[in-house]
Amino acid sequence: MAALPDNVKSHAATVRVVVAPNAFKGSLTAAEAALAIARGLTIVDDAIEIVSLPIADGGDGTSAVLLAAGDGVIRETIVPDPLGRPVRASFGLLDAGRTAVLDVATASGIALLAPHEREPLSVSSRGTGKLLSLALDAGVETVILGVGGSATVDGGAGLLAALGVGLLDEAGTPIASGGAGLARLSRIDLSRVHPALARVKLRVACDVNSPLLGPHGAAVLFAPQKGATPDAVLELERNLAHFADVIEHTTQRDVRSLVSGGAAGGLAAGLFGVLGATLESGIDLVLESVGFERALLGADLVITGEGLLDRQSLRNKGPCGVARWAQQRGVPVMALVGGIADDVRLADFYEFAGIFSICRRPMSLEEAMQRCAELLESAAESLLRTVRHGQRR
Amino acid sequence: MAALPDNVKSHAATVRVVVAPNAFKGSLTAAEAALAIARGLTIVDDAIEIVSLPIADGGDGTSAVLLAAGDGVIRETIVPDPLGRPVRASFGLLDAGRTAVLDVATASGIALLAPHEREPLSVSSRGTGKLLSLALDAGVETVILGVGGSATVDGGAGLLAALGVGLLDEAGTPIASGGAGLARLSRIDLSRVHPALARVKLRVACDVNSPLLGPHGAAVLFAPQKGATPDAVLELERNLAHFADVIEHTTQRDVRSLVSGGAAGGLAAGLFGVLGATLESGIDLVLESVGFERALLGADLVITGEGLLDRQSLRNKGPCGVARWAQQRGVPVMALVGGIADDVRLADFYEFAGIFSICRRPMSLEEAMQRCAELLESAAESLLRTVRHGQRR
Repeated sequence: MAALPDNVKSHAATVRVVVAPNAFKGSLTAAEAALAIARGLTIVDDAIEIVSLPIADGGDGTSAVLLAAGDGVIRETIVPDPLGRPVRASFGLLDAGRTAVLDVATASGIALLAPHEREPLSVSSRGTGKLLSLALDAGVETVILGVGGSATVDGGAGLLAALGVGLLDEAGTPIASGGAGLARLSRIDLSRVHPALARVKLRVACDVNSPLLGPHGAAVLFAPQKGATPDAVLELERNLAHFADVIEHTTQRDVRSLVSGGAAGGLAAGLFGVLGATLESGIDLVLESVGFERALLGADLVITGEGLLDRQSLRNKGPCGVARWAQQRGVPVMALVGGIADDVRLADFYEFAGIFSICRRPMSLEEAMQRCAELLESAAESLLRTVRHGQRR
Repeated sequence: MAALPDNVKSHAATVRVVVAPNAFKGSLTAAEAALAIARGLTIVDDAIEIVSLPIADGGDGTSAVLLAAGDGVIRETIVPDPLGRPVRASFGLLDAGRTAVLDVATASGIALLAPHEREPLSVSSRGTGKLLSLALDAGVETVILGVGGSATVDGGAGLLAALGVGLLDEAGTPIASGGAGLARLSRIDLSRVHPALARVKLRVACDVNSPLLGPHGAAVLFAPQKGATPDAVLELERNLAHFADVIEHTTQRDVRSLVSGGAAGGLAAGLFGVLGATLESGIDLVLESVGFERALLGADLVITGEGLLDRQSLRNKGPCGVARWAQQRGVPVMALVGGIADDVRLADFYEFAGIFSICRRPMSLEEAMQRCAELLESAAESLLRTVRHGQRR
């Protein structure tokens, strides 16, 4: 029987552990999770070398993770929220101002709306467009946009309009905002777009690989959790399909068959189709940006984690991306998670050397979330004790 | 960094895992727990060699574990319960009838009483004495008595009386039963004890190492959970101290300084003091009886477990005994537990290569107990996947 993990290097010198958790949604940011894990490891061995690399996968908080890893600066401003109300929002500048990082959730997030305000037919991604426009004004060469946590299903129409894209009806009048407005779209006028768009690279960090349309698309799969009624879902599906047709007619880009086109209510499809943005796996983009491959050199173990591991996690979400990268480079990966959903088949998560819940006894979700930092610390302590058990004899 | 566990033998041949869980109290017997663990292991590798050795530590269920391991026979009978009502009880015969195994809980257990009937001043261990007397009649050479789960705090007075020991007041009349009766004890008459006691070896399997008297003793520490009021606790403490004096006067045996004398409401002290029984660590006695040392030969891993791991577990309870034995013989041990109590310092459980809760997400105690077999199976699957992860590349 092989030891666990048997490709962990055995040497007397300092042990190097890469700590790369996702956020524990509702409890800890990725950075807070990394701190808790590091504290737990240090209880067992205060000489351990810890490389702290909090991660994100395109979901809410992606720009903060990139900003922290890159030692960037924050620019704050006021933009319209999904309902047009002013909201304080920010973006980050990295690489001496050459790269801007921002999240759709900052200006167009579901968390900005009270439950009764969630109405994808009317809410707009315009605030994110304003934020992006300001980043372009700052003279950046690349924009990285995290798309998780959006409130909108407007195909990015609001964002595009804020960047100078003319979305016009038959009469040449700009269409109404929100998912409903797309029904009247007749043509797309690109003559007045923000001039920087000609040279700036737009990289969209997608946290899902759902297509724009169909049963796993932006309307059917995601609009209900953004407040859409069944009738609204059908209307949104029709409007997004119509948007896809107009885009194809205008730019000859096919957004129907686009992987991840459904991210952020079709905003990903709109950015690709209209402006030629690249849609990328959020976790791969983040791991590349934070220098994960470099961190793996000489690493003995990677510890990742997230709030809930479910079957969705297999679709390239944070910890699975971490595991894939680390496995390819021969470094074992363990995950500490708030919980493992009942529908998870452990065999599907074969890249992991181990997956452990922070719940060390029966407890309520409320207690697990409130005590998340403490439980994560204890689980990290337990994990390192387990990994090192053989050594101490 | 060492692998986990790095003394696990690596070979291409069959892997041998000893599955030795305690009962998961309230959910699974030790045998049921062993079955669930074995099922989980088999999901990962159906060629694995599983040595199933359910264990017990002197607690309720000890005789069933010994009986199953030894392929014994059961003798059923009717004896008095703690209140004198008839109750069906049984003992086991092993080694071709040379060894009897029985539990105090069978005839004198707390589970036999409704909450309002729990009154240590009056309830008696007489039923256990009747059961033991029948075992002696069967011509055994050794009796192993598991003492966990008792309802009584009578110092074993009822048991002793049932074996023919005269517990007499100043007038030479037998004292009343229960913890209260001991106050009137004046002398102990050994002239009419069961004749077999002269040659039979009495081995008491103790699940606690609490002394008879004092703050960690049978009255102060354990009587409250058996229904004693604060006043009753003080009365019981006085009566047990008086019993110790009379015992010392009669047999010159000191039961005050006896390790485990407080087990089963002082029944352990009474059996030692009056009849010269040996008090043994329950888990060590069981591990010896079921052939645990032999099972460890050539074993690659031991998996143990129990319902709740708390600081009490350190006092030689089941899984810690398993870990100690296995560690001394160089076989790594992992524990699967229902929960780890908040007061547990993981560093104190250094004999374990790993301790994992079966709770893979936040859940109520009720759910964890109801789904215990399924969760334990899944945890065993996860554990084996983790241990073997290095192998599969």
